[in-house]
Amino acid sequence: MKIYGDRQSGNCYKVQLACDFLNIDHEWIDVDILANETKNDDFLARNPNGKIPLLELEQGKTLAESNAIINYLASGSPLYPSERWAQAQVLQWQFFEQYSHEPFIAVARFINKYLGLPDDKVEEYESKQTGGHKALKVMEQQLGKTPFLAGDNVTTADISLYAYTHVAHEGGFDLEAYPAVKAWLSRVAALPNFKAMA
Amino acid sequence: MKIYGDRQSGNCYKVQLACDFLNIDHEWIDVDILANETKNDDFLARNPNGKIPLLELEQGKTLAESNAIINYLASGSPLYPSERWAQAQVLQWQFFEQYSHEPFIAVARFINKYLGLPDDKVEEYESKQTGGHKALKVMEQQLGKTPFLAGDNVTTADISLYAYTHVAHEGGFDLEAYPAVKAWLSRVAALPNFKAMA
Repeated sequence: MKIYGDRQSGNCYKVQLACDFLNIDHEWIDVDILANETKNDDFLARNPNGKIPLLELEQGKTLAESNAIINYLASGSPLYPSERWAQAQVLQWQFFEQYSHEPFIAVARFINKYLGLPDDKVEEYESKQTGGHKALKVMEQQLGKTPFLAGDNVTTADISLYAYTHVAHEGGFDLEAYPAVKAWLSRVAALPNFKAMA
Repeated sequence: MKIYGDRQSGNCYKVQLACDFLNIDHEWIDVDILANETKNDDFLARNPNGKIPLLELEQGKTLAESNAIINYLASGSPLYPSERWAQAQVLQWQFFEQYSHEPFIAVARFINKYLGLPDDKVEEYESKQTGGHKALKVMEQQLGKTPFLAGDNVTTADISLYAYTHVAHEGGFDLEAYPAVKAWLSRVAALPNFKAMA
């Protein structure tokens, strides 16, 4: 099993963390987004959408989208519950992550940390703050009620949302106003086999 | 079973179409986004993220996120395959839809059709065209190889992507350059129990 990824990317970190929690052997192939390595013909033949992470089981058998990958890897384990309603809750949080969280928190971090907050990106960076805080408030409300996002047990939904929430400060988000989120971050980082992002 | 939605919204149409295909009885409760009905206390108690569609099985038992809802509804049916790799392909396309398709094609449509393309939105509208065409190209490539997005059979991935692709022209996207996408739209619309968007 090969995983194409960038160790600095939260979306790729989700896959690394799922492999750590599940003790899954894999070959990690570094792909440099900033050097446009996801846009060459070789990579586009593997993923026409030109994005990492990408899972390759064998030649021609690939899976894209971080959340689809970690659910596939965790299938059959408690991290991805098979019971219908429980699984629906996990998916609900993962679609929330991709639509209401990542486009604000991860993008603000990218502009700040990787692009160095250039003048022509300040307006975009600032526009990301409102949406990011809205997402954090939704998480705070849930995590004030249950220890993990989908309930009493850790699932792939927690991996999905941990990835960019634990580095939200790099996108300018102060987590002091979100005590339940902070406690949850500590809870995830204390799990067996947890490894920090590179 | 109650579904809170807006008949004009593609995300809500996904849920209606899944119910049609699966013959699921439900009570539809109209919610007007433009009148901010998703932002009042009553609705926020049901979905803290303030978005439709929302599925309510009973008081306090709700599920948000269109793709999570339709997978839940289709669970156990061929529309949502239980085999691990097949299900992973469905999820891959649904996460693609929420991250690489909807934010361009649905948002361009919203600006054009519902906001009337006001002067202060022209730049945003135009910025959505590149990403939208990129998504359509990725779909075209897949649908040149398989009749449905996840392979030989229709799945919830097709419902997810049909919703905004079939009205992409309302966002300024001409589908003439995407013959495989056009053939697939006709294939979906010819399925038993299919009902058009209101």
